[in-house]
Amino acid sequence: MLPASRFAGLPAGAEQAEHSVTHPLGFRAAGVHAGIKKKYRDLALLVSERPCASAAVFTTNAAAAAPVLLTRETAACDRLRAVVVNSGNANACTGKRGLGDAARMRSVTAGALRLPPEEVAVCSTGVIGVQLPIDAVVGGVARAARKASRALGNEFATTILTTDRFAKRGALTLALSQGEVRLGFAAKGGGMISPNMATMLCFVTTDAVIPAPHLQALLARVVGRTFNRVTVDGQQSTNDTAIMLANGASGVGLSGKDLRLFEDAFEQAMLLLALALVADGEGATKVVRLRVEGAADPAEAEVVARAVANSPLVQSAFFGGDPNWGRIVQAVGQIVPPANGAGLKADVAFDRLALVKRGVAAALTYDERRHLQKIMQTREIDVLVSLTRGQGAASVFFSDLTYEYVTVNSEYN
Amino acid sequence: MLPASRFAGLPAGAEQAEHSVTHPLGFRAAGVHAGIKKKYRDLALLVSERPCASAAVFTTNAAAAAPVLLTRETAACDRLRAVVVNSGNANACTGKRGLGDAARMRSVTAGALRLPPEEVAVCSTGVIGVQLPIDAVVGGVARAARKASRALGNEFATTILTTDRFAKRGALTLALSQGEVRLGFAAKGGGMISPNMATMLCFVTTDAVIPAPHLQALLARVVGRTFNRVTVDGQQSTNDTAIMLANGASGVGLSGKDLRLFEDAFEQAMLLLALALVADGEGATKVVRLRVEGAADPAEAEVVARAVANSPLVQSAFFGGDPNWGRIVQAVGQIVPPANGAGLKADVAFDRLALVKRGVAAALTYDERRHLQKIMQTREIDVLVSLTRGQGAASVFFSDLTYEYVTVNSEYN
Repeated sequence: MLPASRFAGLPAGAEQAEHSVTHPLGFRAAGVHAGIKKKYRDLALLVSERPCASAAVFTTNAAAAAPVLLTRETAACDRLRAVVVNSGNANACTGKRGLGDAARMRSVTAGALRLPPEEVAVCSTGVIGVQLPIDAVVGGVARAARKASRALGNEFATTILTTDRFAKRGALTLALSQGEVRLGFAAKGGGMISPNMATMLCFVTTDAVIPAPHLQALLARVVGRTFNRVTVDGQQSTNDTAIMLANGASGVGLSGKDLRLFEDAFEQAMLLLALALVADGEGATKVVRLRVEGAADPAEAEVVARAVANSPLVQSAFFGGDPNWGRIVQAVGQIVPPANGAGLKADVAFDRLALVKRGVAAALTYDERRHLQKIMQTREIDVLVSLTRGQGAASVFFSDLTYEYVTVNSEYN
Repeated sequence: MLPASRFAGLPAGAEQAEHSVTHPLGFRAAGVHAGIKKKYRDLALLVSERPCASAAVFTTNAAAAAPVLLTRETAACDRLRAVVVNSGNANACTGKRGLGDAARMRSVTAGALRLPPEEVAVCSTGVIGVQLPIDAVVGGVARAARKASRALGNEFATTILTTDRFAKRGALTLALSQGEVRLGFAAKGGGMISPNMATMLCFVTTDAVIPAPHLQALLARVVGRTFNRVTVDGQQSTNDTAIMLANGASGVGLSGKDLRLFEDAFEQAMLLLALALVADGEGATKVVRLRVEGAADPAEAEVVARAVANSPLVQSAFFGGDPNWGRIVQAVGQIVPPANGAGLKADVAFDRLALVKRGVAAALTYDERRHLQKIMQTREIDVLVSLTRGQGAASVFFSDLTYEYVTVNSEYN
């Protein structure tokens, strides 16, 4: 099942299903313990039984890891048929040897699946700066290829996890006018990051017929509206990758209303997964949706929203259940240019309760103060910041800053 | 005494002295309990017995507080003679009433000191969004004006504190070719911020003869090299203010070598105070100096340095004594544009021990690993990040992210 949230919901016509990435027709997957992690499964394989259209988006971090460099620069990202993923080691900051190991991981997978190497994507997640135990990986690939089946989508989804507290996966069946199509999802990440670790990974499968150029535009658009709208600590990893495979096995194409339903269901599912990443953000106890309205333009709204969302002061206050709008105003004021001789005239509301009007604290009644305390105890809080500078608007989702964040990220590894 | 640090030192010819801001000739100060805080002194006054040249720099936050708006827009910032400061209430997000209260605080102070109102600066620090108890403030001003003396500089320095764990103050006597001049300092702030609180404040007095335009340039230059180079959580307050008063009471002017010694001593003292703010940054246990070299230009170096310094991942690692250079590389990679098809080629060294060379983890010997553990246990750590993009360089100082930061900032107030 996809995780639940008040901030997203599936459209009518979308039914949840089992087996995540192997729910769509014609996909096989598996996870094995190759020996990178001490104990848990760490090598995952996903393959389509037939040729695919594909799409991929990667981290823009200049310190991109070897598997990202390899896949982005040398794979056929519009016709990928398989993905091999290891957890426990990011193969980042590993130099030429790391690039060689990523290429070896790919060629071994291609050999085992009898595919051209350029149709195989490689992903890694885990510790940075340690060379990959490539012999263990090679052995794991062979076993995963033998084991892969239509029943093991969830095993794939579990194998790619690192410090995640829970799996992020799901599957949908969509009833379209021309027949049913299916979508499968597996994602990982506690926000972007972990102790010595990195990475958001997201894999999407579908048996709908979607040409590659449309698929790339669709994936980029939906990632832009979902995964790119969440933040735990503003940190972007060296390994972030999202890959979508569309093998057309349903024989059903998309157009008109069907296309809109498909994109809506896809986007809502991705938003639920992205929100689950935030909720799993190292130690997080709360998810906040922050909408900024009335900025000079969308770019300013975006910068303001991220400044507030990534403020450790704001995040700490939400952890403590403290409706500290002063820190929100302060973070906004740090971005917005000063008005001539006048203070910032912002409105701030929590779950539609106005706390600040035109830059001045609102006088709350006793009942409103009680209501505010209740709002602060909920796990999902809606915050609206309204400026009077223009029409720009943007939303982001963020988590609170907790003791556990410090614990998880300060432990010597 | 000024606080000590390995990252700054006073020049020969500068001797430390007592009484902080009242060490220079012709200044009086005091602190009283007006009743804004429950118990501690909360109203501080500093005045020169004779006309002054003055200089001031203010927060650039658009949500600037009432006292900042009032002083910046309506005071004679080149000939201020007195400063009135309250702690316990920031008078921020208080609207027209807040502006009126700040003006009242100024006019009452001017009356008590028999000065024109425009020669009085007003500063506030404390909780945001609560109206100032102006009657208590007015009573406090009268008592502080009566009490003010040449012996009470330290009382002034203590009265302006909020959540600070210790006072940041000091005084210097400089032996110049034409005679002695004196400098006095009082600053406050745990980084920039506190629970519901805000503000870095810094007050500097001197009896040297310095014309106002020179003084403004000097203060702006030195603040740029000291207070503007430290960060605790990247948050800039609504009330930050630095004010310098030069009353010329020594009769000694500055030129040539004297001027250089004066500026050097002034800058080193300000850097020691700024580092003390970082060291007092809510729960901080470590101060890190980060130098970025080899950036495309100084602006890029600055952005990279602040991205690393404000990364909660990097800050948490230092708290845990974890030499996690992977997070530094990741933060750098988030800013620097990607190289074509190649990973980021950065060098990283801690106290001159190379941990990363050209983007790849350095192989450390047993002795080097032991040495690294020792480095991570020290309270002041020097980190160098070298890029190969150009000649741009920048340094910032930051503190670690600790449990106490979360405690202090998550408590409901």
